[in-house]
Amino acid sequence: MEYPSRLIENAVGEISKLPGIGKKTALRLVLHLLKEPEATTAELSEALTELRTKIRYCKDCHNISDEEVCNICASHRRDRSIICVVEDTRDVLAIENTAQYTGLYHILGGVISPIEGVGPSELNIEQLLQRIESNRDEVKEVIFALSPTMEGDTTAFYLTKKLKEFGVKISTIARGIPIGGELEYTDEITLGRSILSRTAYQQD
Amino acid sequence: MEYPSRLIENAVGEISKLPGIGKKTALRLVLHLLKEPEATTAELSEALTELRTKIRYCKDCHNISDEEVCNICASHRRDRSIICVVEDTRDVLAIENTAQYTGLYHILGGVISPIEGVGPSELNIEQLLQRIESNRDEVKEVIFALSPTMEGDTTAFYLTKKLKEFGVKISTIARGIPIGGELEYTDEITLGRSILSRTAYQQD
Repeated sequence: MEYPSRLIENAVGEISKLPGIGKKTALRLVLHLLKEPEATTAELSEALTELRTKIRYCKDCHNISDEEVCNICASHRRDRSIICVVEDTRDVLAIENTAQYTGLYHILGGVISPIEGVGPSELNIEQLLQRIESNRDEVKEVIFALSPTMEGDTTAFYLTKKLKEFGVKISTIARGIPIGGELEYTDEITLGRSILSRTAYQQD
Repeated sequence: MEYPSRLIENAVGEISKLPGIGKKTALRLVLHLLKEPEATTAELSEALTELRTKIRYCKDCHNISDEEVCNICASHRRDRSIICVVEDTRDVLAIENTAQYTGLYHILGGVISPIEGVGPSELNIEQLLQRIESNRDEVKEVIFALSPTMEGDTTAFYLTKKLKEFGVKISTIARGIPIGGELEYTDEITLGRSILSRTAYQQD
């Protein structure tokens, strides 16, 4: 497509580099910004620049943070004996929203994926081992909350081997049929796993 | 949702102001930018700022342009006797892609919509009338290529009244069954109009 202006072409090109946004959507966004007051665009690009240049990561859990140590790691209300290992910040937000977990987190920053060239050294794995090493008396359990993909499983397998020497309890979040899910529409792997990992029925 | 950082919250807030982008998508984009090199974000926000501050509009047709007069208006190959009236730049791109039109354009910058507070004075209508006035000998036909919505029809009706005094031919793009469309799945209004506006069958 031939754009009427180099500025449009440039902006569409940059926006369509974002995941899930194609050239048509990018053009729609660009035309929207042109209709809005100049301040809208100024605020947007300032927020992006500030985000990328000033962002900091918690020195303990590697979650995004405004301070050297994030709110969760700094809180005295959290259970310091459990560390939940997740891929990124979104997983922390999702788990925090459940209000069911009171332990700490450790953000890997991804999962091991040979195809995408992500090895253990690209992730915050060494930092996790050091963190457990220097808090040996405190940490009792490590929970894996990773995606049920080949990459997630590989990462869990690698971590399990590395964590062996610390003698901590290792667990993984339950796989099974979602609440409200219909048995007959569940895929056979999930259904099979839900039978193998059956839990005692609560009779009160 | 409580974001781990004020910078994230701010960026998510600004991005989710864009049409069709919610908080979840915005967060996904933000985390993507944080994984990419700093230059990606810098180029994106520069492209947006430059777009919004340096953009110019063609003084004749009001399309987006890098020069005072856009490529189409400046071209000697275009038929200057026809002006196609459209809502915005995207419509020009769409019509240009068909390679079926060689006339000029006039961009209204929207359609009349009392609900959204857009009246004739917010659009480039006065400029269209002046443009035809000062090129009375040249302009023979005005084509309306507006959306078949109530707003589009209102705008066409308003323009028709205003254009009366110039004695130019007024036409509108054909409504009918899309090429490849099935008769039985076409809504009755479109089908009805396609019968009323039937055209002579080409027998060669």
